[in-house]
Amino acid sequence: MFKDPVGTPIQPVFAHGAEGTVEVFPAHADGLHDLDGFERIWLLYWFDRAPAARLRVVPFRDEVERGLFATRAPCRPNPMGLSCVRLLRIEHTLLTVVGVDILDGTPVLDIKPYVPEFDAFPQSRAGWLENRAAGRVLADHRFRPDGSRDSGGPRSEPNGTSIRPTLQ
Amino acid sequence: MFKDPVGTPIQPVFAHGAEGTVEVFPAHADGLHDLDGFERIWLLYWFDRAPAARLRVVPFRDEVERGLFATRAPCRPNPMGLSCVRLLRIEHTLLTVVGVDILDGTPVLDIKPYVPEFDAFPQSRAGWLENRAAGRVLADHRFRPDGSRDSGGPRSEPNGTSIRPTLQ
Repeated sequence: MFKDPVGTPIQPVFAHGAEGTVEVFPAHADGLHDLDGFERIWLLYWFDRAPAARLRVVPFRDEVERGLFATRAPCRPNPMGLSCVRLLRIEHTLLTVVGVDILDGTPVLDIKPYVPEFDAFPQSRAGWLENRAAGRVLADHRFRPDGSRDSGGPRSEPNGTSIRPTLQ
Repeated sequence: MFKDPVGTPIQPVFAHGAEGTVEVFPAHADGLHDLDGFERIWLLYWFDRAPAARLRVVPFRDEVERGLFATRAPCRPNPMGLSCVRLLRIEHTLLTVVGVDILDGTPVLDIKPYVPEFDAFPQSRAGWLENRAAGRVLADHRFRPDGSRDSGGPRSEPNGTSIRPTLQ
């Protein structure tokens, strides 16, 4: 997955083909039965490297300050993330998923099946995000924990192997 | 909203017209700007009256035991709920929403805009839930905290007024 917030896709739909692994506690293995019938799953996770909450942010896909709850930015009062990813396969407690926009090591809080009947509303009006199709699709420095523009560390690269967020 | 798990719609799509209010902490009011442009919002909440976690459940819409993570049942290791509701209006820190399948007083953890580009996959394969369209749409006793079949209390009725889950 991605090592640095900078360069990480801001949503699964922009993480074309980025593969990752979700590692579930062995004690919870039994709960994974029947999940392989679902093409997509929801990952609910904790933005463990999010900066402190801010109630106004300039989101990645805009240049205008917006109310935090009208964005998917990580710096939330409860820093919880929600991503719909494609489920490729399940091997015991390892889920291989595609379309990952999540940082390596992120704690996964819950996994739910994606059910179009409950979750898909393709015509739903999307406020300021409409007409922003040409906007940014990869994260820049703005939600980095220390707010710096360069970490000095390695750049974020999809590597198709590791992460393993853990269901806690 | 709904006072008793029994009779509560099991998903927003079955809560036809059930109206409710989400109360956000006044200190977070600033984060609600721009949210009114969105037709739908995600509510992430805590199933505060869920029974203890079980890894195999017979979901409301089936008669067969399924792996917990392949269901939206409340008795999860992290009892977190996810519902897509229609946003009717915002008055200061009160959000009026429609299509509510949530119990009165449920703590709301986060609010996010529903963005079809990120969230809508109408063709996504839905495992055991496919071909279950004729299944149950209102909850029965099976996920009641004490597992009893009758609480002796008032029956669940949508009342169009109160709840006020609180963003914490």
